[in-house]
Amino acid sequence: MSQPKSIAYLGPAGTFTEMAARQLAGEDTALIPVGSVSEALDSVLDGSAERAVVPIENSLEGGVSATMDALATYSGVQIFGEYLVPVTFDLMASPGTTLESIQTVYTHPVAYAQSRKWLQARVPNHSHIPTASTAAAAKTVISGHTSDAAIAAPGAAGLYGLVTLASDIGENKEAQTRFLEVGRSGAPKPRTGFDKTSVIVELPDDRPGGLLEMLEQFAARGVNLSRIESRPVGDRFGRYRFNIDAQGHLEDEAIAEALMGLHRFSPKVIFLGSYPRADKSESVHRGNNSNPAYESAQQWLESLRGN
Amino acid sequence: MSQPKSIAYLGPAGTFTEMAARQLAGEDTALIPVGSVSEALDSVLDGSAERAVVPIENSLEGGVSATMDALATYSGVQIFGEYLVPVTFDLMASPGTTLESIQTVYTHPVAYAQSRKWLQARVPNHSHIPTASTAAAAKTVISGHTSDAAIAAPGAAGLYGLVTLASDIGENKEAQTRFLEVGRSGAPKPRTGFDKTSVIVELPDDRPGGLLEMLEQFAARGVNLSRIESRPVGDRFGRYRFNIDAQGHLEDEAIAEALMGLHRFSPKVIFLGSYPRADKSESVHRGNNSNPAYESAQQWLESLRGN
Amino acid sequence: MSQPKSIAYLGPAGTFTEMAARQLAGEDTALIPVGSVSEALDSVLDGSAERAVVPIENSLEGGVSATMDALATYSGVQIFGEYLVPVTFDLMASPGTTLESIQTVYTHPVAYAQSRKWLQARVPNHSHIPTASTAAAAKTVISGHTSDAAIAAPGAAGLYGLVTLASDIGENKEAQTRFLEVGRSGAPKPRTGFDKTSVIVELPDDRPGGLLEMLEQFAARGVNLSRIESRPVGDRFGRYRFNIDAQGHLEDEAIAEALMGLHRFSPKVIFLGSYPRADKSESVHRGNNSNPAYESAQQWLESLRGN
Amino acid sequence: MSQPKSIAYLGPAGTFTEMAARQLAGEDTALIPVGSVSEALDSVLDGSAERAVVPIENSLEGGVSATMDALATYSGVQIFGEYLVPVTFDLMASPGTTLESIQTVYTHPVAYAQSRKWLQARVPNHSHIPTASTAAAAKTVISGHTSDAAIAAPGAAGLYGLVTLASDIGENKEAQTRFLEVGRSGAPKPRTGFDKTSVIVELPDDRPGGLLEMLEQFAARGVNLSRIESRPVGDRFGRYRFNIDAQGHLEDEAIAEALMGLHRFSPKVIFLGSYPRADKSESVHRGNNSNPAYESAQQWLESLRGN
Repeated sequence: MSQPKSIAYLGPAGTFTEMAARQLAGEDTALIPVGSVSEALDSVLDGSAERAVVPIENSLEGGVSATMDALATYSGVQIFGEYLVPVTFDLMASPGTTLESIQTVYTHPVAYAQSRKWLQARVPNHSHIPTASTAAAAKTVISGHTSDAAIAAPGAAGLYGLVTLASDIGENKEAQTRFLEVGRSGAPKPRTGFDKTSVIVELPDDRPGGLLEMLEQFAARGVNLSRIESRPVGDRFGRYRFNIDAQGHLEDEAIAEALMGLHRFSPKVIFLGSYPRADKSESVHRGNNSNPAYESAQQWLESLRGN
Repeated sequence: MSQPKSIAYLGPAGTFTEMAARQLAGEDTALIPVGSVSEALDSVLDGSAERAVVPIENSLEGGVSATMDALATYSGVQIFGEYLVPVTFDLMASPGTTLESIQTVYTHPVAYAQSRKWLQARVPNHSHIPTASTAAAAKTVISGHTSDAAIAAPGAAGLYGLVTLASDIGENKEAQTRFLEVGRSGAPKPRTGFDKTSVIVELPDDRPGGLLEMLEQFAARGVNLSRIESRPVGDRFGRYRFNIDAQGHLEDEAIAEALMGLHRFSPKVIFLGSYPRADKSESVHRGNNSNPAYESAQQWLESLRGN
Repeated sequence: MSQPKSIAYLGPAGTFTEMAARQLAGEDTALIPVGSVSEALDSVLDGSAERAVVPIENSLEGGVSATMDALATYSGVQIFGEYLVPVTFDLMASPGTTLESIQTVYTHPVAYAQSRKWLQARVPNHSHIPTASTAAAAKTVISGHTSDAAIAAPGAAGLYGLVTLASDIGENKEAQTRFLEVGRSGAPKPRTGFDKTSVIVELPDDRPGGLLEMLEQFAARGVNLSRIESRPVGDRFGRYRFNIDAQGHLEDEAIAEALMGLHRFSPKVIFLGSYPRADKSESVHRGNNSNPAYESAQQWLESLRGN
Repeated sequence: MSQPKSIAYLGPAGTFTEMAARQLAGEDTALIPVGSVSEALDSVLDGSAERAVVPIENSLEGGVSATMDALATYSGVQIFGEYLVPVTFDLMASPGTTLESIQTVYTHPVAYAQSRKWLQARVPNHSHIPTASTAAAAKTVISGHTSDAAIAAPGAAGLYGLVTLASDIGENKEAQTRFLEVGRSGAPKPRTGFDKTSVIVELPDDRPGGLLEMLEQFAARGVNLSRIESRPVGDRFGRYRFNIDAQGHLEDEAIAEALMGLHRFSPKVIFLGSYPRADKSESVHRGNNSNPAYESAQQWLESLRGN
């Protein structure tokens, strides 16, 4: 696939998700904002979009539960790529607003925590009203209300008729969000040598050492994990499924054997995809865990079996 | 301590958190609603409240990030107990509203997901506006607006002048939220035999098998984990701290030795407390991992050393 | 193969090894005593015998070093079966000897240790001269010397012109020796469901946790070991190869994958054979580690790869 | 203790064991040859010798079963040191014997295997009669028999009236044997920083993964093993005890905690001693496993407990 004809992304416009979708989009790609992760995945399944772009992880906040849970329950979708977007926060308000006139700051709690130091210094007497997203904050500021301001992604000001009072006021300048490119299930893109493989694994619920046993399925094949995050299965306390990113591609035999080990071990394992890493970090397995080592072991086994 | 004189809880009034705080409160206990988990912990530290009650985990949604992150960064606080509250959702609105007149439903996304089936059957033509909490949804309904409704905890209707149109409309009837009782650091309550011990452990960042190694610190002492949840450290991708609930009390030698093992292994381990389990499930270590087995091993060691 | 035409066994005649060889021999099988384990294996390689029978393990004494070391260095041979022989010791001497006349008892140190209690009670004033085997002891007794006696296997008396003074004088009545049937390398006998697979594995010498890592190759596939015995590689201290009997057959996928894991992990792994267990104990892998579970995992992998 | 007054060693004189005993002996030490490992240990227990010197491991042949089994069954004895002796083999015979006149070579099978290449080149037409020890071989050569020769330790020739025909004819020039200094149980010698600790551990017989679990008791404390050797318990097949040398001293907290872990895990664990390594290789535990790290963890635990 070159560039997708259409991308459904978690809107509204002006969010970091739109910025991620633009990394993937070509000139002629239609960008379709939707209201939830579920709608984005639905768009892919019903064919109204070729790809969906959804946030999966934020270096400040951690995993995005809605995406992890949707990927655990939808079938027929697969991850084909990932994209990183730096997270910066701007203070924006209706034209005519000054720092002094601001009384109420709308924003998402994470953006607020990141901007607190700046606000204490520059807008000491404000109250904070939390919103469900930073775009929602920008949307909430009523035109002409010079006592209101929003903290949101840079693109939001233009979209909602606001002006930017201050740029990049967040504390952590390295903050970024990772986004997934999701499409209909199919053969993964070819192995590039800097790939990751994502799976969701449910633990058997009758074994105390289940997590340890699951990790040994990777360790026995020398596969490193770059991320492991638990989510409740949702039926009752104490039952978890694990969201795992492993280093390597389905065409790496170490990954293939680890996946088969998980398939035997786990009551439910979901393959989410093998795709190139956004950070281009190398994923080739070497030595004992290289493809040639696996092939040589396979040939040895065949010779023992007299084949 | 019998009953605390004052409890700061994550407000507003009418939330499930208030219901948890009431489990702990005595007749004369002052209940103080505060705006955030951080404020609740601050109240404990500055002495304005003896205890704080904050949500830690929801069987539908998983861990509460704000609480996990606050506990990872505050020092001087400790968990002294936990409380379970069943999660039920009511549909509420201004007096005079009927199911037919409802056009907009305010609620938190998780409450919405739980209520979607009921709404599709009974209020098929509505739009959903997500709010930061269910109490915030109730607060948002403007008096006299019969086109608005909120989905919130049962107690919210009375607090915000609304009437209940339908009760317990959530799909999962087993859903519950777990709350923590937090106080100033000090010696834990005595071992009861049905205890849990909570810690936050940062992994050394130079070892691929760090998580496996951490889990072996528990496994080598026969300690079962009832919960393990990862949170980003927050400085960059790929660095995690793990929130762990282990079965047993600081006075269980298996727990004590596992904690010391973690202390040696981890660059940072935070002891959050040993406290009675809300579900009264037994936590006594038996056989090889019992206190007598530890004492006998200690005596044997002393005899070998010629002491 | 029905019955072998010829069997080389570790002689001399009258040993327990001959008794094992007779379990395997048919009416027309030639039994060829040889002087060492090496000669027995040589006979198989040069075609002068179809099979060799050699002792591998004694429940009193442990592994037979000579056999373990020969199997580690010979190539072209393979184990095709195992046989158990109860170990009983008789006291034998020249005709005319009485218990009272005995002054010197010849025997192998293990046989002596087993018979010590009986000797203390019945022949209290004797001295012991250790010999290299029990058959060598019987051979050493000089005809007509009524002050000498030997402790040896029941069959030795007749062979060396001695009479039995007392039968079954060993302390442990359960003692037995296990023998191997060795032939030229080839496809193993078919899987019976009560099989074992023997390998010799050298550890990589640069890893402190090498043994643990090796055992995890079995554990990750749910393969139980019935025997693990270390032998020095022989070049210097601290380098070991491990003699391992695993439960199952080369046609059990759990065994096959574990063997391939060892092949990747170890600088040298020798497949010694898959063959029926003498004790008929079941070796079928069930549940996660059954052949159907492996096949289902393989098919799942193929489907993910789009094949 | 400076030098022992008396040492019982596994005789006869002229063996490598005597050479080891001389490393430990002072000018006034009485050296007492005894007939077996058991006698040597008995001498220590009944006070007829202060120390016993017995072989434990040969770099060619592996562990000495008799010593391992005696240490597993005696109580009241402990290892206080180890000594290495290079293993060299001389060909010796009655005066007047020439290489050409030799027809029979007496020696222990291991010495024979080591000397086979040399013999094939220089004494091609000989037969080999195995003996129980190399000293026994020297003793067997009848005075004046010029068709007999023995392969034995250098010291044996003088003791048994033989002359040396060829020196150091063994193949492996690095070969050595390790000997133990055994005394009555008591407080170990102080930690030197290049120590080892020896234990014998029986596995619980009801757990398939028992060996893995035992090794994890060491791994969880970062303790490396320099030797692990299995021996049958002796009652029936499939039950093993493991002879283990671990890096470090009883006063190393990593060792102490690992030992206590074994004590809890194992139905029977025997502490054989902490003593200086003969090869002076460093055994200090660093980083997470150092004594300061253990002390700091202990203090942290005490502070959590409010002590």
